[in-house]
Amino acid sequence: MRTTVILSGGMDSAVLLYKLLGEGDIVNTVSVDYGQRHRRELICAERLSARVGVHHDVIDMTSLGRLLKGSSQSDPTVDVPFGRYDEPSMKQTVVPNRNMVLLAAAGAVAIANRADRLAYGAHGGDHAIYPDCRPEFVYALAKAFQLCDWHPVHLVAPLSAMHKGEIAVLGGRLRVPFQDTWTCYVGGDEPCGKCGACVERAEAFEFAHLKDPLIGGYYNAW
Amino acid sequence: MRTTVILSGGMDSAVLLYKLLGEGDIVNTVSVDYGQRHRRELICAERLSARVGVHHDVIDMTSLGRLLKGSSQSDPTVDVPFGRYDEPSMKQTVVPNRNMVLLAAAGAVAIANRADRLAYGAHGGDHAIYPDCRPEFVYALAKAFQLCDWHPVHLVAPLSAMHKGEIAVLGGRLRVPFQDTWTCYVGGDEPCGKCGACVERAEAFEFAHLKDPLIGGYYNAW
Repeated sequence: MRTTVILSGGMDSAVLLYKLLGEGDIVNTVSVDYGQRHRRELICAERLSARVGVHHDVIDMTSLGRLLKGSSQSDPTVDVPFGRYDEPSMKQTVVPNRNMVLLAAAGAVAIANRADRLAYGAHGGDHAIYPDCRPEFVYALAKAFQLCDWHPVHLVAPLSAMHKGEIAVLGGRLRVPFQDTWTCYVGGDEPCGKCGACVERAEAFEFAHLKDPLIGGYYNAW
Repeated sequence: MRTTVILSGGMDSAVLLYKLLGEGDIVNTVSVDYGQRHRRELICAERLSARVGVHHDVIDMTSLGRLLKGSSQSDPTVDVPFGRYDEPSMKQTVVPNRNMVLLAAAGAVAIANRADRLAYGAHGGDHAIYPDCRPEFVYALAKAFQLCDWHPVHLVAPLSAMHKGEIAVLGGRLRVPFQDTWTCYVGGDEPCGKCGACVERAEAFEFAHLKDPLIGGYYNAW
């Protein structure tokens, strides 16, 4: 099975990469640069790929990102909200059609490399504020992936039944180098600790009884 | 109804633009630059949008195009085949996942502009060699578009029941400025007249009893 892995550089897709490494032939990893505020995740994706010796492609979509006004993650004039994901202010972190763009572009690279599977790290704990994280969206797009080429691509989300705490547990078991993952939405040199993404990461590490290497003294690894 | 029109600069999407102009509020037009060999079509899309006074965005996806080896339309090392579309050699004109990428990116711009509809010029005569021109692919992707955002986007293909000859007839009635459309796949300064795209365009104009302004003396318009 030839698999292309979408690697954002966050902890979920890092765990996915390490999980799939043991399951078959990973062809390549793909990241999308849409001008995201938290650009450190792209550096993490590059480091993770180099660690496991897999070719990594970054697709430059900053041109598209500039057209997507109104999201804190692609529009520098909109602030990142602080708090938990269940607060209404978090809606401003939604990037229009982000997942379809990401999956379509990575799928093109997968097809060009004759991969059979396109794997990405959507999971059960993904939040109700993101419409394109809903399983029904993924199913509809998976159907389109069966039809988009004569060489069909199976879109799979192997972490979809897990919540983020369970993903941290799995990552601990697989010895994922979490110091080479990035989660904070703000885009500073250190995790802010206050945005929804940071709060959720902290809860996942707590659930897994793991210490986050990005926090406190461990941060010197960067 | 706020509509975003995907405008390639070819004759089909030009006719679609003129058809929709009379039907409601066109918000904007969107083209995708994937490094296509026939770059004149992007100039045509810009000219057409300026003629009708609609804002035109070009999304630069040349970074993705460079990763898509093997297609004559995105890989400069692969020649454009000559002949009719029903010949096996035409398969090398297929760009991997082209339509999903195009629709996903244009859809992101549509959502950011709060459009209700995303219209594109797929039609009944699109060829069996292009898997992502099949109606079942479009239906699957339209379903995904209903789910990708809280503000659903209707993906519509108003020309889908017509063949290219009928589209030329409609374009003639709507006085579409065909001199500002580009079809040839080769990427020269004049239409080559021999590639599948040129052969098909010539047949469409013949069906409609129209003279193609790009051929012969009319070509001076450029």
